[in-house]
Amino acid sequence: MNNKAQIICIGDELLIGQVVNTNASWLASKLTELGFWVEKIVTVSDKYNDIISSLKSAKNANLVIVTGGLGPTNDDITKTVLCDYFKTKLSRNKEIENHISSIFSKRNLPITELNLQQADLPESCEVLFNELGTAPGMAFRNSEFLLISLPGVPFEMKNIFENQMVDYLKGHFNLPQIFSQTIMTIGVAESFLADKIRLWENELVNKNLSLAYLPQPGIVRLRITANQNCINGKEQINIAINELYKIIPDKIFAVGDIKIEEFIGKLLTEKKQTVATAESCTGGTIAQILTSVSGSSKYFKGSVVAYSNEIKTDILKVNKIDIENYGAVSEQVVLQMAKNIRDIFKTDYSIAISGVAGPDGGTEEKPVGTVWIAVASEKKIIAQKFSFGNDRVRNILRASITSLDMLRKSIID
Amino acid sequence: MNNKAQIICIGDELLIGQVVNTNASWLASKLTELGFWVEKIVTVSDKYNDIISSLKSAKNANLVIVTGGLGPTNDDITKTVLCDYFKTKLSRNKEIENHISSIFSKRNLPITELNLQQADLPESCEVLFNELGTAPGMAFRNSEFLLISLPGVPFEMKNIFENQMVDYLKGHFNLPQIFSQTIMTIGVAESFLADKIRLWENELVNKNLSLAYLPQPGIVRLRITANQNCINGKEQINIAINELYKIIPDKIFAVGDIKIEEFIGKLLTEKKQTVATAESCTGGTIAQILTSVSGSSKYFKGSVVAYSNEIKTDILKVNKIDIENYGAVSEQVVLQMAKNIRDIFKTDYSIAISGVAGPDGGTEEKPVGTVWIAVASEKKIIAQKFSFGNDRVRNILRASITSLDMLRKSIID
Repeated sequence: MNNKAQIICIGDELLIGQVVNTNASWLASKLTELGFWVEKIVTVSDKYNDIISSLKSAKNANLVIVTGGLGPTNDDITKTVLCDYFKTKLSRNKEIENHISSIFSKRNLPITELNLQQADLPESCEVLFNELGTAPGMAFRNSEFLLISLPGVPFEMKNIFENQMVDYLKGHFNLPQIFSQTIMTIGVAESFLADKIRLWENELVNKNLSLAYLPQPGIVRLRITANQNCINGKEQINIAINELYKIIPDKIFAVGDIKIEEFIGKLLTEKKQTVATAESCTGGTIAQILTSVSGSSKYFKGSVVAYSNEIKTDILKVNKIDIENYGAVSEQVVLQMAKNIRDIFKTDYSIAISGVAGPDGGTEEKPVGTVWIAVASEKKIIAQKFSFGNDRVRNILRASITSLDMLRKSIID
Repeated sequence: MNNKAQIICIGDELLIGQVVNTNASWLASKLTELGFWVEKIVTVSDKYNDIISSLKSAKNANLVIVTGGLGPTNDDITKTVLCDYFKTKLSRNKEIENHISSIFSKRNLPITELNLQQADLPESCEVLFNELGTAPGMAFRNSEFLLISLPGVPFEMKNIFENQMVDYLKGHFNLPQIFSQTIMTIGVAESFLADKIRLWENELVNKNLSLAYLPQPGIVRLRITANQNCINGKEQINIAINELYKIIPDKIFAVGDIKIEEFIGKLLTEKKQTVATAESCTGGTIAQILTSVSGSSKYFKGSVVAYSNEIKTDILKVNKIDIENYGAVSEQVVLQMAKNIRDIFKTDYSIAISGVAGPDGGTEEKPVGTVWIAVASEKKIIAQKFSFGNDRVRNILRASITSLDMLRKSIID
């Protein structure tokens, strides 16, 4: 196999456990998708000798990805180490220097020599442009491996990988064609999903297909991959997906890696329709998720976060007596919230939500995790009660995703 | 130094990026707290040779922690490898066998021979009891290091560590007392901060203190640690922090690891004051961040997310003509948003924000990243213009954190 990869992550913050190494898992999944076999992930400190010895012990690999240690401060020494290892020296790259200057001038920030030093690059490397930051990626080659050094800042690293490295790697390695597809399911927990689709899943082995469960709060991505000895992988995958649709028709919201908020954005844009939210326990999270999508201003008009009963009555015009009689976390209240926000904001759809996120505020009747969600359209209003868990952050996220699932069903109804 | 530690994580799910290695960061932080220096974290596959070679290359360490590969299925071979490496053999441990049986009978599950085989343990190891699961921890000693093997299931691993291993390690190592402290800075980018505090930072070496920069959007955590040959580490750190306060008084919001939203929550709770937000480009993110804190309903009353101009005029009562004349992203508009949301929601403070998050909507005059933020209190309203970058997600986050910094300053004013 000539596609063995190693990932070397540099940074004391990883070794003292202050930062979780999400870069490593992200890179590992991307490299795996491309057809590399990641045989090892190593995290070492910012010390010269530790970095050198991790490079030396990577000599069995064909590809080595190094992340981190490219910042402007003194503790960042990756470039120095790479110069020594690849027997080259630093020199100022004019193009990158201009790029760095323009970043600072755009932000109206004074630039220092320390910032400009990020344009000092090893002479023997190929530069992988970093449009979002000051430290570019660098590719080196020797008789042992291709090494690519990337900044440790996640969004910069990911941007360089997606926009520069994928093509670069395809040009330098003979990568197998790997067929895989992601099926997006929503509103069913991993263990229930596994139970429901067990027979279908067992059949995949015979077809040389394999399945991975990738759970997130409220959502499980199913990744189906054709093994290397699978003939017509693409077709086999499509057949399997069609069979899966028959088993869990209302749980699949899309085929292909797309977020639920992007999917809803597409639906609403196509239909030229709009939505607003009235949020209590989620505190603006549904609005935040919907507006994370570029172009969401076309269909999202806004939200009222009513974190106190006063706002529910004064702004959302919920009947005060209903709040007193039934409580803020009740069917009666979310129905009014949904109806009224839709009227006030003049939208086609609305989501309203009220619940006990925790850790305080639970009662015997309405324990932590109790959430009422309502979705209103011109045709109807539906309210539903849910019991999520004990964890505040997860409750808020699961409630938000669940409300988006209800909105999705209302739109495609 | 005799307290060098390595962490070896075993599992293909880590190498294909399906699971983020939170075990490693958790263990690293716990070992660091105990006084170990974690010099390396290695992730390898479930393959025999890969595990063996990771053990061999750990011979510089005094302590090696191995996680994973202890499950009942065939692909879990850690025990076999450890038997070979430490030249011992498996034999049935009656106590663990009884423990496994009782777990299954409590859960009313049938038990198989495969399950009972988890009680087959290497004869030379010391058993670290796993009260929450079937695979116990195991401690081995040779001339090179002390090795402890732990199950990969996070809650079982953590339980064994806390309840069995901490005392075990204290008994086997002469652990130093390590002092460190985190200083939370806000509103200054890493490179500027480094420039501003360079002289102070350079002095730290003489005091046997070391510094790490841990940047997040809008925030840089500074971690200052007393080296082992530092006398009076705790005091030295305090003196250094006091000196740092003199250099960047308004950039430090707290000493100790606390989030800005938690800090604001504390301030407002102490003062019994309240806040509301009127958000355009951040789409509810400020509200979401503020309400992520337990008990935030005491001081956060709510938000209007005004993602369309209609909502700005109808709900937030912004003068329509001002929007036409100056645009929605303008000083005039955010000042009115801040003033009016504070009046409508009857709070002590308010935040208003309007900007171009991107990627669309930028103009020459107001390019993507242009954000106006206003903070209002009883005493005054301040509006400020910022130029963030090109990335939508980061713009939203940086604008939100910056607005919280302005709120913080307004509260402590």
